[in-house]
Amino acid sequence: MRVAYDGTNYHGFALQLDENIPTIEGELNRALSELLKQPIEVIGASRTDAGVHSQDSVVVFDAKTTIPANKIPYAVNNLLPDDIVVNFGAEVSDDFHPRHTDTRKRYEYRIRRGNFENPIRRRYTFNTDYTLNVEAMKEASKALIGEHDFKSFCSAHTQALTTVRKIYDIEITEEGPEIVISVTGAGFLYNMVRIIAGTLFDVGRGKFDVNDMSVILNACDREKAGETLPPEGLILAEFIFDNYPELNR
Amino acid sequence: MRVAYDGTNYHGFALQLDENIPTIEGELNRALSELLKQPIEVIGASRTDAGVHSQDSVVVFDAKTTIPANKIPYAVNNLLPDDIVVNFGAEVSDDFHPRHTDTRKRYEYRIRRGNFENPIRRRYTFNTDYTLNVEAMKEASKALIGEHDFKSFCSAHTQALTTVRKIYDIEITEEGPEIVISVTGAGFLYNMVRIIAGTLFDVGRGKFDVNDMSVILNACDREKAGETLPPEGLILAEFIFDNYPELNR
Repeated sequence: MRVAYDGTNYHGFALQLDENIPTIEGELNRALSELLKQPIEVIGASRTDAGVHSQDSVVVFDAKTTIPANKIPYAVNNLLPDDIVVNFGAEVSDDFHPRHTDTRKRYEYRIRRGNFENPIRRRYTFNTDYTLNVEAMKEASKALIGEHDFKSFCSAHTQALTTVRKIYDIEITEEGPEIVISVTGAGFLYNMVRIIAGTLFDVGRGKFDVNDMSVILNACDREKAGETLPPEGLILAEFIFDNYPELNR
Repeated sequence: MRVAYDGTNYHGFALQLDENIPTIEGELNRALSELLKQPIEVIGASRTDAGVHSQDSVVVFDAKTTIPANKIPYAVNNLLPDDIVVNFGAEVSDDFHPRHTDTRKRYEYRIRRGNFENPIRRRYTFNTDYTLNVEAMKEASKALIGEHDFKSFCSAHTQALTTVRKIYDIEITEEGPEIVISVTGAGFLYNMVRIIAGTLFDVGRGKFDVNDMSVILNACDREKAGETLPPEGLILAEFIFDNYPELNR
């Protein structure tokens, strides 16, 4: 299934030890178990942190049912809260695992420029009153494209075996007062997009120089990069399977 | 002051008889009274219904204070909930009344096209799975521009003395899946923009013909127009004083 959610009211995608803490995974398990009258445990293809949003998460589960997979979204949405919406369902083979196949994910981070927050955008943007040099941000982002050791852009809390990742593309566009940093990669380290956004923010406000970006990257030192920007600006925008075009939208 | 708010959690702008019902006016009165240590009652230049948003409402109040008007936004925002933001303050003359001077207001109504709601847009759009003919909507909207009796586009609950109003402009644009109906006028009748949006929606989905719009207008009969679309798609986008350029943004 493909799932969109407003992450504001959840402690992230992943189930928490305390089942009373609301999570996307917990809500999906509850609603699917109720619909299909059997215990369902979804496997998420990617996780998001507390407060982060998604418009294209992928989950997989096993079930015995006569309900066709493409009808499940309509049925399960009635059992989910308004801020979680399933918008695609398809049957996959028994050996399919969404984390053991080549995929690309595109995340968007939104920085809004304004002296004051806009209340209808506050859940979905990081607001700043700094003047930002967007051209410098675009220029600096180029150093990150390709396969690199992204240790400088990874939270110290990582459990990853390697901090080498590949970024296919970074696009920076403006939508009125909002700057949209769109990052496409095969996989991401913990907090990687939020730290990239924080470092580009520092370039934009002149704390870092355009050329500092490759120095920060090569340092392989989290202390050298910018701050982790807050979760509300981040959304998982697109999830693409390289080898299963029929599962893409 | 100019005030922006997310109307989702409020029963509209105007104070309710039961003071426990949350309203924008009630929150402003409470926060300003606390800040200025005197009872403050704001006068709103325009009201919005329950669930409707604003990014540019105007309120006026009398107070004795040494705090300069342009500093009040910073101080009062600390005492307001996150979904109400004051972003401009200026002193006006004693005889100034925001409803007794010429103004223009621009409202936006957003219709989102999708088989499923997008959870991060559900508070700010009316979602539909109809295919809409946007060109027909643009063509039909032209019949409404100018000074007309808008009785067909006014809730039966109106207390207005006359239903004649003047629309300066209607612009219909597309932002990805969202259709934005932008209506600028000197003043609006109760539910007028939401009924105009509902009638244009009916033109878009083929229930009405482009030429039906002037027939509906001339009928002066609420029954002939489309439905009142839900409040969440509506936002007061801009408020302009014709004779006080220093109060505009």
